[in-house]
Amino acid sequence: MERCRLVFSGSGGQGVITAAIILAEAAVICENLNAVQSQSYGAEARGGATRSDVIIADTPIHYPKVIQPNVLVCLTQEAYNKFSAIIRPGGLLITDSRYVKIQRKVDAQQRELPMYRSVMEQIGKPIVFNICMLGAVIALTEVLRPDSIMKVLEGRVPRDFLELNQRALQLGMELGRAAAH
Amino acid sequence: MERCRLVFSGSGGQGVITAAIILAEAAVICENLNAVQSQSYGAEARGGATRSDVIIADTPIHYPKVIQPNVLVCLTQEAYNKFSAIIRPGGLLITDSRYVKIQRKVDAQQRELPMYRSVMEQIGKPIVFNICMLGAVIALTEVLRPDSIMKVLEGRVPRDFLELNQRALQLGMELGRAAAH
Repeated sequence: MERCRLVFSGSGGQGVITAAIILAEAAVICENLNAVQSQSYGAEARGGATRSDVIIADTPIHYPKVIQPNVLVCLTQEAYNKFSAIIRPGGLLITDSRYVKIQRKVDAQQRELPMYRSVMEQIGKPIVFNICMLGAVIALTEVLRPDSIMKVLEGRVPRDFLELNQRALQLGMELGRAAAH
Repeated sequence: MERCRLVFSGSGGQGVITAAIILAEAAVICENLNAVQSQSYGAEARGGATRSDVIIADTPIHYPKVIQPNVLVCLTQEAYNKFSAIIRPGGLLITDSRYVKIQRKVDAQQRELPMYRSVMEQIGKPIVFNICMLGAVIALTEVLRPDSIMKVLEGRVPRDFLELNQRALQLGMELGRAAAH
């Protein structure tokens, strides 16, 4: 496989760190890959945009920081403004259409998805916004199998909330697939 | 301040990743420091021992991985067996006395604390074991102020569970202080 370098960015309560940890665990536990997951906080973190990095590879990962992601997700305008410039040329840039309104042209495949709106309309629980985002990433990149994500969710999420998470994952995958063309 | 490199290790459900994220966020948000927090998963992660790294510094952190921690926490025997050799000579090695029974002599200040037992006896909820551990780390290292941890907990923990977390943090600090001598 090609090494996959992902950055998920957004604001504090959107669950980007949790999404990154779930993705990394799924890669390692279910697909026998290597993964590194990290948060770097500095002066910019106090500004409000949270960033979480994941590297997934089938070879050992020596340097754990993502410099140029080939997959960048921005869930707020502030995160977009801060991080859109670091996308690897030709990479995949996913934004949420409710939270990111103003985009400049970057050298990337830009996918603007109504993730937040769809979660609110079809599921009604903002807490699974991050799982919907993971579904979109999985559908657009095929970096892991959806059932690997589900397996990790089964170990982390209380039984009563599992179906909610499954629906969010599938919703994200549908949005991703519809935008794949 | 001296740069602080911490590794928290244990098994999947013990919350070492969450503890590391809380510590890193407290450093950045409340004490104006820099922090990097990461999980490296590879072949060894499938074995069962989870490891989570934090670096805290008042200068920029360029290399985010911890090679030799000056603070190492081991919450299971397996984690101890796997990671005790990486402690920085003269560093601080904290183990839980219920889960780590067999220790060899390492070049470190070894502190064996009854964290799990105290949490179960005095609070009765294993879910705050990781917060008790954080309290012990704070008391023994003074890397951050306890109220910085509380402030992050206030933003993350549902109101009903906040007192539980506060008690666990204080319990850990008492255990740490008692072992500081």
